[in-house]
Amino acid sequence: MTHASRLFGPEATPADNVAGMAADTAVRRDRLRSQLAGLGVDAALITRLVNVRYLTGFTGSNAALLVYDGGTDVFCTDGRYRAQATAEVPDLEQVIERNCARALAERLHAEQVSRVGYESHSVTVDGLDELRVTAPNAALGSLQQAVEVLRAVKDEDEIGLLRQACAIADRALAELIDRSGIRTGRSEIEVGRDLDGLLLDHGAAERAFETIVASGPNSAVPHHRPTARAIEPGDLVKLDFGARVGGYHSDLTRTFVLGETEEWQREVYAVVQEAQRLGRAALQVGADVREVDAAARDHVKASGYGEDFSHGLGHGVGLDVHEGPTVSYLGAGTLAERMTVTVEPGVYLEGRGGVRIEDTLVVRADGPELLTQTSRDLIVL
Amino acid sequence: MTHASRLFGPEATPADNVAGMAADTAVRRDRLRSQLAGLGVDAALITRLVNVRYLTGFTGSNAALLVYDGGTDVFCTDGRYRAQATAEVPDLEQVIERNCARALAERLHAEQVSRVGYESHSVTVDGLDELRVTAPNAALGSLQQAVEVLRAVKDEDEIGLLRQACAIADRALAELIDRSGIRTGRSEIEVGRDLDGLLLDHGAAERAFETIVASGPNSAVPHHRPTARAIEPGDLVKLDFGARVGGYHSDLTRTFVLGETEEWQREVYAVVQEAQRLGRAALQVGADVREVDAAARDHVKASGYGEDFSHGLGHGVGLDVHEGPTVSYLGAGTLAERMTVTVEPGVYLEGRGGVRIEDTLVVRADGPELLTQTSRDLIVL
Repeated sequence: MTHASRLFGPEATPADNVAGMAADTAVRRDRLRSQLAGLGVDAALITRLVNVRYLTGFTGSNAALLVYDGGTDVFCTDGRYRAQATAEVPDLEQVIERNCARALAERLHAEQVSRVGYESHSVTVDGLDELRVTAPNAALGSLQQAVEVLRAVKDEDEIGLLRQACAIADRALAELIDRSGIRTGRSEIEVGRDLDGLLLDHGAAERAFETIVASGPNSAVPHHRPTARAIEPGDLVKLDFGARVGGYHSDLTRTFVLGETEEWQREVYAVVQEAQRLGRAALQVGADVREVDAAARDHVKASGYGEDFSHGLGHGVGLDVHEGPTVSYLGAGTLAERMTVTVEPGVYLEGRGGVRIEDTLVVRADGPELLTQTSRDLIVL
Repeated sequence: MTHASRLFGPEATPADNVAGMAADTAVRRDRLRSQLAGLGVDAALITRLVNVRYLTGFTGSNAALLVYDGGTDVFCTDGRYRAQATAEVPDLEQVIERNCARALAERLHAEQVSRVGYESHSVTVDGLDELRVTAPNAALGSLQQAVEVLRAVKDEDEIGLLRQACAIADRALAELIDRSGIRTGRSEIEVGRDLDGLLLDHGAAERAFETIVASGPNSAVPHHRPTARAIEPGDLVKLDFGARVGGYHSDLTRTFVLGETEEWQREVYAVVQEAQRLGRAALQVGADVREVDAAARDHVKASGYGEDFSHGLGHGVGLDVHEGPTVSYLGAGTLAERMTVTVEPGVYLEGRGGVRIEDTLVVRADGPELLTQTSRDLIVL
């Protein structure tokens, strides 16, 4: 595989592209533009690749973007993507250079732009040094994750892609179950491969992340990687997976029981199911993310499993699998209309097993819209 | 999917773990330790995840490491990985915290360590600010990619994993051809899915990166993403793919012709094939990376296609698909024994098609060792 400069950290995986983004990206750039004066900068140098994609529609693995307060925006990628850039970003002037950040900083220097915003949460310390050398007269200031803040609230086109990605995950899981894909004797790896194939069969450009299949005691590990362990009667089997469509990700977790259920399994499942319902119900416009987390967590605590719920309740999902808002006791801020988030409480009993139930939802004025539809009731396979 | 703090940039994809790394990682940490005095620091705070893996064997998605000049090293991960850390990093003291960088910086502050090295090429500007606030009395200095420099030279255990990853890629491609998987009427996406499945069938933990299948005019795009385009008679078909084994990646490209070949296809193929042979032959201990690039590029130029070879000759490959050394006219430095690199010249004729031939090799005192073995002769399917 060929490669380009990676001064600003690892390249993102090339993702699927999607038609019809051009119209929206100009609106998005204008939203960012309108914030530049408030941030005290004359131009924004966007180097985080997923943010460049959001603002331009470009789906290659190396790019940067200049957004001016009162100027014409400029896009940069390298020679590998010349044709793709012409197709995906027809509305912007294009610079072709390997080191996109440096090339655009050179331009800012030549244009004597005096105050430049950069992505201090993404640019490395060495990357900032290079910007300082390249544009020595510019005052460099943080953009304070302005693009991520914009991205947290989706437009209906984005929600449409998320809805597709969620429907694909639902259908892939339904077909896996219909085919008796989760059964005694099959390994976690085999189940995972089947599910990955079904995601593609049902229209995913890619799976959203490496599929988690965790059986028996392994289900007590929140992030378990599939192994050769064969599923046994009585196992809890936890699947955490998703589809990617047009760059947007779904995130769905369900936990099943194989054959006979035991009392402790039914009890834990009921606790998580009710906590998840409470967490979903708390997804209201204006709700503090810590209160949403507490709505679910308080039930888990009251049931005696507080110590076994070892992570936050959920996270935003979109062009990144994990993005803002952080729906957690460690988060901050309130929910807004058209944020898309997961709700995924879990209880993990080391050495025995664990249960997690996760949906992807949209925050709406009239209550949350569920994008993942698979039943949350305990299914015994 | 649950998530943890990502202050230091995007999380790496959870990768396959591999047994028996513990012994070597202590040696690797000692190699880093021996450089700390020269770097002017008393301890190194390692936060780049793939570097933590290299130095500890830990394969989870959130971790950091302290390596002391004359102290006992300390590892940190979060609660999701408690059991995995115990299994994978049994030899180190463990701290369990979400924000690993901050937790270890707090420890350095409590211990009054005065000079701390950090990874300035990986830590973001915001991340450095947090370190400064957390350990206000420490002088923070760049480690200057010390771990990446160590990683560029492989030990024989690593080469063994790379050899496995390359053999799997060879076998998967051979089976794809045996099955007539590349034929008229099949789409790029179909061919890519078959190849991905064969990589897993032959023992890959994962594919190394998103498989490139580029047919006809698409083969002129160096990094083409598979589409629904159906392969036609006379097409050039370029496959660029690899397997991941124990975290190590192979990287293999071959270009085929479907049915009858045209004169221009044979000519371009012969130019690239000879350039690739010359590039491989130039992989000698002590060779300047620019001279290696030139060995191949000069032949392409002399043949009149210099403008159509739009990227460097190759790159290091290991725990990252792209790592040091950069074998390019834009690179610097010389080759050392046991570096593993790709050699991948290409000629791309926009609108018509392109040819790239790529192998993964080990630099050896007695000449390069080829890890990928598939024939480089023009194969007409």
